[in-house]
Amino acid sequence: MYDVSAIRADFPILAREVNGKPLTYLDNGASAQKPRAVIEAVTRAYESEYANVHRGLHFLSNLATDKYEAVRGTIARFLGAKDEHEIVFTTGTTEGINLVSYGWAAPRLEAGDEIVLSVMEHHANIVPWHFLRERQGVVLKWVEPEPDGSLPAEKVIEAIGPRTRLVAVTHMSNVLGTVVDVAAICKAAREKGVATLVDGSQAAVHMPVDVEAIGADFYAITGHKLYGPSGSGAIHIRKSRMAEMRPFMGGGDMIREVGREAVSYTDPPMKFEAGTPGIVATIGLGAALDYMMTLGMENIAAHEARIRDYAREKLFGLNWLTVQGDAPGKGAIFSFTLQGAGHAHDISTVLDKRGVAVRAGHHCAQPLMEHLGVTATCRASFGLYNTEPEVDRLISALELCHDLFA
Amino acid sequence: MYDVSAIRADFPILAREVNGKPLTYLDNGASAQKPRAVIEAVTRAYESEYANVHRGLHFLSNLATDKYEAVRGTIARFLGAKDEHEIVFTTGTTEGINLVSYGWAAPRLEAGDEIVLSVMEHHANIVPWHFLRERQGVVLKWVEPEPDGSLPAEKVIEAIGPRTRLVAVTHMSNVLGTVVDVAAICKAAREKGVATLVDGSQAAVHMPVDVEAIGADFYAITGHKLYGPSGSGAIHIRKSRMAEMRPFMGGGDMIREVGREAVSYTDPPMKFEAGTPGIVATIGLGAALDYMMTLGMENIAAHEARIRDYAREKLFGLNWLTVQGDAPGKGAIFSFTLQGAGHAHDISTVLDKRGVAVRAGHHCAQPLMEHLGVTATCRASFGLYNTEPEVDRLISALELCHDLFA
Repeated sequence: MYDVSAIRADFPILAREVNGKPLTYLDNGASAQKPRAVIEAVTRAYESEYANVHRGLHFLSNLATDKYEAVRGTIARFLGAKDEHEIVFTTGTTEGINLVSYGWAAPRLEAGDEIVLSVMEHHANIVPWHFLRERQGVVLKWVEPEPDGSLPAEKVIEAIGPRTRLVAVTHMSNVLGTVVDVAAICKAAREKGVATLVDGSQAAVHMPVDVEAIGADFYAITGHKLYGPSGSGAIHIRKSRMAEMRPFMGGGDMIREVGREAVSYTDPPMKFEAGTPGIVATIGLGAALDYMMTLGMENIAAHEARIRDYAREKLFGLNWLTVQGDAPGKGAIFSFTLQGAGHAHDISTVLDKRGVAVRAGHHCAQPLMEHLGVTATCRASFGLYNTEPEVDRLISALELCHDLFA
Repeated sequence: MYDVSAIRADFPILAREVNGKPLTYLDNGASAQKPRAVIEAVTRAYESEYANVHRGLHFLSNLATDKYEAVRGTIARFLGAKDEHEIVFTTGTTEGINLVSYGWAAPRLEAGDEIVLSVMEHHANIVPWHFLRERQGVVLKWVEPEPDGSLPAEKVIEAIGPRTRLVAVTHMSNVLGTVVDVAAICKAAREKGVATLVDGSQAAVHMPVDVEAIGADFYAITGHKLYGPSGSGAIHIRKSRMAEMRPFMGGGDMIREVGREAVSYTDPPMKFEAGTPGIVATIGLGAALDYMMTLGMENIAAHEARIRDYAREKLFGLNWLTVQGDAPGKGAIFSFTLQGAGHAHDISTVLDKRGVAVRAGHHCAQPLMEHLGVTATCRASFGLYNTEPEVDRLISALELCHDLFA
């Protein structure tokens, strides 16, 4: 039994008001709010269990190390990884993908080699590849979504050519909510000897993820969208790919031996984790994933599917609203523009006055915006604590917008 | 009036016991504990003021952005920087120095170009330069400290040759406590057209820092040693150097425009800040620096000088203890080995049983260990909340060690 009222009570911020109205937080695609379990894990760490990790032998250092390292297993469990040594802690998806770009791709891709991307990638899964284009002549090959926002696996697979070295694709669009059949893409790419990176920033928040079943070489997640602290995250990297990678950042903890004329590196995953990490953020991420797994990812997905269906019907019922994307099985993320409203920002400002928090802009997805023929959209993105009455509040605020701008 | 009892009461963890003894936390060189002001700033952010920054227009996003961006000014004030746009947020010194290595040095240093380093650098200020040696043939040129642990500016300046492109040096040794006259080094380097990077990880914690007076091109600090959250930090970069740098990590927030065949970047400092940052860690760092500035950096330095003098006299009074480094004006950091004790780790384990937390190992400074002819030391490192009775507890625990291992 998914008790959304009880769940909402776990999130202190949801009780607050904004502009004199109850907060209706529909900006989960940008970042999610944090349950008390996460806030308390962070507070407890700082109040009574804090020290630097790995390098100490005293009680607090051992305690902090145990709590921190335990999260590797939690993430492995959350992602269905069979070996927690395939989990590298990061500060989020951006760092995770840059790790792959600098550590795996940069030393092996040559001018003319191709990376296949979808047009609906987030900038975090575009700009690191643009670096390789700018710096070493790698070619970016783009796959467009269908008019309904879906991205058929076959289209991505067909784009794989003899020079393709990597397919980098999102598991769920942060703008359209489209879910991509990444397992089919990864299977076909593997058969052709092509590496695969999946951006799981959105998907892992909303549905069960099994990295073994997906079969990507690299699967990146970000903690702040997973109800965890900002500055936390991880990437799952297959052992065989880890072995191909050179280190990304240099510093403490990732070395075996440092001399004046030589340096050697420790084994993965720590080879890719330089310096004092975000110890407490990672501990908080562990608490967030435990929270989600206790609710059950299937249950969260089922709840959000109900919200999606309810919101979809209401939003498509507004004939002055243009909703972008309606792929079957999409997540509860809706991007739209309002006929007559000059700019998406105007809508979000009006909504904000009613306590409804949505995001307006390009959502770090400018190639998709260009493809859709818009400069910006308004986006309502739902999470595990959202409710049908919140959808109603969004609709009623949109109707107010329509009256204002019509 | 520096009231250390009142200050200690600000740090919840200092009230706890370890192994049935009051905690005597002397591992500040590895990471510092957090005052209630920091913990509360973090809690408040998550409980009532959280959203993603920069990209939103709704109330919570604006609030979080204001709180987050205000920290840039706080850091600028803390470091004496004249322009807060010269402050780049990082996750700590390791990321800061890697930003310089990848963003400034890698695209311009050629085979045979030299980087001058001291032998007492932390691995964070060594390994990123080893990358350039391994990958593009850059030469590392090492300067050794004097027998007393001091590092005369002239020795570093003399090492600058016609092929030297960068001097990368610590402001305070994390092992010996040696304070380096980085202003003299930076002045001489600048006159020779050589760039300078100063690792301020330790120095900024213990003494007033004025980056304008120092004149380094790059000055890196780390939040977790500054009584702030793990995963926070910053680097001060001169505008002229910023203009020479290419971006390091790619992703959201650091772009101006992303197309399929082209990308352009936003202005510094955000050009170097990709993706959703550690929003709350940075807000916590702001609270930490406010806390330190309220106490007064001069007052903190004076308090720690008293502790250093007291500890120095006691430690040098133990004729079975070998203390490494005794440079004039050093910080309150003491590394030592105990004659008869097999390994520094054994000492730290015995001390831990008495509630005294010190660090044993190579302290991420293997070239220095090799120079000193040891594989590891035990290190007691003091902070703004430490007291003379805590020094006494250290001494009494060391005497117990001596009895055990003699």
